[in-house]
Order: sequence, then structure tokens, then C-alpha cells
Amino acid sequence: MTIVQKYGGSSLASAERIRAVADRVARRRQVEEHIVVVVSAMGDTTDGLIQLARQVTDDPDDREMDLLLSTGELISCTLMAMALRARGVPAISLSGGQAGIQTDATHSRARIVAVDSGRLKRELDAGRIVIVAGFQGVTEAADVTTLGRGGSDTTAVALAAILRASVCEIYTDVDGVYTADPRIEPRARRLLEIDYEEMLELAQQGARVMHPRAVELGSVYGIPILVASSYRDRPGTLIHRIDEPTDRASASEGTGGTAVEDRNKVSGIAHDHNVAKITIVGVPDRPGIATEIFQPLALASISVDVIVQNTGLAGVTDLSFTVAESDLQRALRLVEPIAEEVGARRVVGNKDLAKVSIVGTGIHSAPGYAARMFHALAERKINIDMITTSEIRITCIIAQEQVEDAVRALHGAFQLEQPDVPALSE
Amino acid sequence: MTIVQKYGGSSLASAERIRAVADRVARRRQVEEHIVVVVSAMGDTTDGLIQLARQVTDDPDDREMDLLLSTGELISCTLMAMALRARGVPAISLSGGQAGIQTDATHSRARIVAVDSGRLKRELDAGRIVIVAGFQGVTEAADVTTLGRGGSDTTAVALAAILRASVCEIYTDVDGVYTADPRIEPRARRLLEIDYEEMLELAQQGARVMHPRAVELGSVYGIPILVASSYRDRPGTLIHRIDEPTDRASASEGTGGTAVEDRNKVSGIAHDHNVAKITIVGVPDRPGIATEIFQPLALASISVDVIVQNTGLAGVTDLSFTVAESDLQRALRLVEPIAEEVGARRVVGNKDLAKVSIVGTGIHSAPGYAARMFHALAERKINIDMITTSEIRITCIIAQEQVEDAVRALHGAFQLEQPDVPALSE
Repeated sequence: MTIVQKYGGSSLASAERIRAVADRVARRRQVEEHIVVVVSAMGDTTDGLIQLARQVTDDPDDREMDLLLSTGELISCTLMAMALRARGVPAISLSGGQAGIQTDATHSRARIVAVDSGRLKRELDAGRIVIVAGFQGVTEAADVTTLGRGGSDTTAVALAAILRASVCEIYTDVDGVYTADPRIEPRARRLLEIDYEEMLELAQQGARVMHPRAVELGSVYGIPILVASSYRDRPGTLIHRIDEPTDRASASEGTGGTAVEDRNKVSGIAHDHNVAKITIVGVPDRPGIATEIFQPLALASISVDVIVQNTGLAGVTDLSFTVAESDLQRALRLVEPIAEEVGARRVVGNKDLAKVSIVGTGIHSAPGYAARMFHALAERKINIDMITTSEIRITCIIAQEQVEDAVRALHGAFQLEQPDVPALSE
Repeated sequence: MTIVQKYGGSSLASAERIRAVADRVARRRQVEEHIVVVVSAMGDTTDGLIQLARQVTDDPDDREMDLLLSTGELISCTLMAMALRARGVPAISLSGGQAGIQTDATHSRARIVAVDSGRLKRELDAGRIVIVAGFQGVTEAADVTTLGRGGSDTTAVALAAILRASVCEIYTDVDGVYTADPRIEPRARRLLEIDYEEMLELAQQGARVMHPRAVELGSVYGIPILVASSYRDRPGTLIHRIDEPTDRASASEGTGGTAVEDRNKVSGIAHDHNVAKITIVGVPDRPGIATEIFQPLALASISVDVIVQNTGLAGVTDLSFTVAESDLQRALRLVEPIAEEVGARRVVGNKDLAKVSIVGTGIHSAPGYAARMFHALAERKINIDMITTSEIRITCIIAQEQVEDAVRALHGAFQLEQPDVPALSE
């Protein structure tokens, strides 16, 4: 079988750490037939390169920036290959292009369009561990691209998919996926496993442990993803297809508390500080208005998250939506002229918001969850600004200063400190 | 017309210097149609990468090392392209591979086998200045190679050849080719021009200004090479085909002194501290012996420079040759068993030698030069250990501690402080 491992930048921050990771990989080779290792750039190499570019110009070109930044992962992958060879382990480094990662030409946030695994397979068949520079690929015209946020994780999952790997292991500075951010809620518990969909929602709602893009790719190709610590030998969290989520609930039945089945449907609490809201007041209520407003934002690559519209009397409505706080000024500049054009009364921007979400398969079909969530927040006198739901998630927009309190309140309300699968817990 | 410029690492040691070079290139664009700029790695980037590799292993693999080191030039070429774009000048950076530099697979000292100039020409035709990462290429298997010593100069001359450039300008921290090393002989004079052959001899005999490899390539393809300062706007030295070297001599006829024609045949004095000698005493005088001794050295990539053999009486001979002092121990380990095998009496190694050469077209056919050289050295009580000559050079092996004295003695003896071409001098 083949496995793919990915090591993040902090696990590779020095020659010493690279040697430690090489030791780990060399040990693993004793039990695995084929190993592909995807690496990020060492420590703060990427920041250093960005600063260097800024010293040359304040508006660096995306294509040039991509070729510049791609050197960070080339450095770490060659050093890792050397470290393995020094341990007597056959190894070879490949750039993204050499590893066959083909992308579109959207520099700085390219998407993988294909993987030509010919070279990769030849090297594996020759008995070598293949070290691949993460976060990068090449276009049809042989220009180097970078994959943007979550890029190295995405490289790892894409290679795992094309090689039909048994698992894609993501080694990072946290040791798994928690029921909430342990820095905020010390009673947060590491999950032994989580379904792709739940992980996607957690990631999209602010859990930083993995980028949603890589989780989505894993889900599409059915690649189990293990998130674990690069420093400690602890089991981590396995993200995979969990076919019957009720199994988990029933497994912990009888461990005390009320509504056991319900409680265990919540897998975790996600939160995100980086939220701003734009409200367009007095929008005429006619078809096509939403497109006129959101199309320009999409073209400017501004992600719109929660959208709420309430049609009032007299054919006008108030339209609110959230964007990342860092995108607020840019979004306002785009929205204001449009609002004027369509005859809206005014545009209001609000910063200092946050969102907090409960995530779990099945919560949509069990209405008690929303009520319990709102009750827990109300008890702490946390006002809810907006609400949005998906099949497996309920999200509230609240004041930024109350978000940590909200995370703790919800963690307690859904009793997440209690293990969900006693049979599997450590 | 097309010109190729090459900037060395010290001209690119900081973002500030890169901006200064970009200013220079941008100004030049006002008068040149097509410009290709070849860059070395910034300052001591390459040394930093080598140190990093050494921290991971004391025996880094050549292939991995090449991919690692290639990042140095990628960084400088992307920054240069950004700096030019920031000045409103269309520019694009290309890696060695993207620029079509194809090499053999001899990692760490690959040779260019072909240049596919398709992309390069398309970018130039699109009105862009093309910045190429020097010192690197790719193999047929798409592995990155480095070209070894003189690599970036070689990249520049090779691109100039394939693009039929009118000139290849090498910008460095010296402002041209001198009649001797100005740090040793303050009266050394910058040459306005020099023939390829003479430059090759100077370079091979120790002048550090350009690697013989790049000069040779320029000579083969007839590309004029200008060596000039990256800091100052001074004319530098033009290395090109000088068809009738006696023209130069006659041009300065009548400027005083004796033997004017003879004097001007010497273009410069080269010296090299890094010399060691191996003597095999009592070698049987039979055919094939030299091959047995020198073949293993060639296979180990040890360059043998001067070889002297004197057949004595009784069918035995003493064979002496020089190698770089840094290769002495390795060479001795190879030669000693062979010497024993062929029945030689013993092997002696000598360090602390140097060589000093006079170089000039035509000196071979004018016997007075050798005599004047030996006389000048004798006057300073400098003993000559070995002598070797070529068509345009006479070289003496002397004690290392006397080499600076020898350079000054010869510079004076051949009156090199006097301009050779008064009409062209500043």
C-alpha cells in the first residue's frame, strides 16, 4: 500500500527538526511499502520571501511571486531527501511540476486540474521515498503556480487520491481535531474520528486545523485523512466516511445525562473572529437584485458567508450579509455604488463581529438543537445578530468580544467534554 | 538587436542593490530592442544553502544539492522581474528550465547540451525584458542541474549565442581585465580589449575575472563579451576576436622605450596560488605509462596542469606534474598505488607552490620573451621549479611565497603599465 504524509512548516523549522522528521519517516518505512512525503516551507521562510519582495516593490506581480514563493518548499523538500539518504533510506525530492501537479493559471491561488503520476510511480516502484514540494504546481505553459491557502494539505490529498493511498496523514502543530479550540475551552476533547462533512463545516466555520479545500478533496475521493501531531506519537483524529453516525450515539448510550442520542450529534464548536457585516437598507424587492449585488463581490474574490434577507412591507427589504473583516473595506467600495444604482436607501458596515457554530450530522432534523443553542447563549446574555443553518450546522453571528464566552457556553450545553465513543477512547 | 547582460551575486546582495540594477536595466531599455538579463544568486545565498544542507548531512547528494542551490537564482530573478515591473518595464523571470537550458545529467557541474529558445523569443517578441536564473538547467528527465563553476557566465554566453546577441555584458565587482591583479601590482592597467585566446589563457592561469569555460563558449560562437563594473559607468574590457594583434603593437610604436613591438605582445600577467606538484621518481621508460598514471586522475575529475618529464639514463625517468593544491591529497592517494605497480621508486608531493604566467598572442614565435621572463625572475632571486609554454603563454612554477614579487617583477619587465593602444585609452 501507499501512504502520503504531509509535514507543516513548524515541524520543519530548522535542520534539527528536519532530521527528527526524517527519523520518523525512516521508522515508518519499515512497515509501509510506498511513502510519499509532502512538505511545506521551513518555518517562516515564506514570510521572509514575501518581505524580500516587498522591499523591492509594494505591488509584486502574482506570477513572479509564485515562482519566488515556490522556492521555500523546494528548499525543505531537498533537505528532507538529503536527511533520509543520510539515514540510508533511498529518497528523492520532486518539485510540484516534477511530481506532475498541473494547475490552472490563476497565480497565487491556482487550482489543481490534473496530476500526472508517471514520475511519482516510477520513483516509488524504484523503492524510493518521494518528497514532494507542497503548495505548488505548473501550468500548461510550464509556469510555476502556488495553490494559495491550504495548498500543501491539498497537494497531499491530491497525491493520495491519484495514488489510491490508504491514508493521507497531515502532521501539524496540533494533535488532532477538538470539540472546540482548547485555548478557549480547556475541557475541549480531541475527537478520535469525524466525518468529512462535519470536518468541512468545522473548517469552514473557523476551525484552523485543516483547510476546507483539502477536506473536500478527501471527501470526493474517499481518502481517509489523519490529522496528528508532528512532535508526539499520539493517535490524532481520523477524518473519514462515517456511514451511520447514530452508531456513535448509541455506543455511548447509558453514560449518563439526558438526551444522550441528541447530545452526541454535536461533534464540535467552531468559531471565527474575522467577521464583518454589510447591511443594505431599503433594497427594492425585485428579481435580479441579489445577482447585481453579489456578482461583483464574487469577481473580486470576496467570499460572502451568511446572507439574510427579510422582505418587509411596501416592496422594500433589508439585505444583510457577512464577509471576512479583512475584506470589509474592499466590499463596501464595491457595494456602495451598486446600492445607489438600484435605489437602496443606504449601506451600513459593521466590524467587531464573530460567528460561533455547532456542527454535527443530524442536528438539522432534530429541532431541539437550535433551541438549546439559543438558550445557552441567552443565559450568558449574548445577543444573536444573525442566524444561519445547514444540514449539519447552526451558526450565530454575535459580538466579537463575546465569542470566547459563547464557545465555552455551547461546549458545556452540549456536554462535549464527555467522550462520544467510549469504546474507542484512550 | 539583442543584448544579454549578466549580474553577479555581489551586485544583487540586497533588495536595494537589486533596485539599483533594475534602474540600470530600465535605462538601457531605452536604447536596446531586446534585453535578456542573467542573474546569479543574491550575495551569499548559495553559501547559506550549502550550510543548511551541511546541517542536515555531511554528504549531501548531488542531485538534491542542485535542486536546493537552484532556488538561489530563482529568488534573485523573480525579484529582478518585480523591480523592473515596478518601474513600468514589462519583464518576466524564467528558471533555467523555462529558458530552455538543457544539460547533461552530471549534477553539480552539468554541461549545456542545447538551448530551446522558443519561450525566450516569444517573451522578447512580446516586448518583455527576460530575466533568466543563471547557473542552472534541466536534464531530459526534467531534473534540475547546476552548471558548476562559472555557471552564470556560461548561461549568459550560451543565451547570447543562441539569440545571436550583439554582445554579452558581464557585470561584476571588478571593472574589467587588468594586466595583472591590481591588489598585487598597483600599476596594473585595465585593458580596453583582449582576444578570446589571450583571455582564455589568463583565465586558465588564474585570473579570476571570468571562468575560461564562458570565454571558450564566446570564442566558439564569436560573441563579444564585455566585462565591466556593476557599480560604475566605466567602459570595462571587451573580449572579442582581434584579427591582427600586431596592429595593436604598431599603434603604440614610437611611444618610447625599447623593443616597442615586443613589449606589446604581452597582454597580461596571470598568477595562481593554488598549486601543488607531484613527482614520481624512477618511472620505467616504456609506452603507456603516462596513461596508466593520468587516466585515474581524469576519472576522479582532478585536473592535471603542467606536466614535465625528463628521460634520464638507464631507461628510467622522473615524471612531475601539478594539480590544484586542494586536490593534492586525493591525487596522492590515487597515484601512490599505481606508482608502486609500475615499479617507480617513490612519489613525492610538494605544496606551497604557485604559478605565474605571461600571456600574449605571438610570444611563442618571439624567443626573447622567455629569456626576458627568466631574467626578471632571476633578478629577484626567484627560483623556477618547472616551465611550460603554449602558443601564447609562458608559465613558471615557483615558490608560493614569491608569487606576488614575481607578478610585480614581470609587470615591470614587460612595461605593462604603459598603454598598449594609445588611440583607444581613456
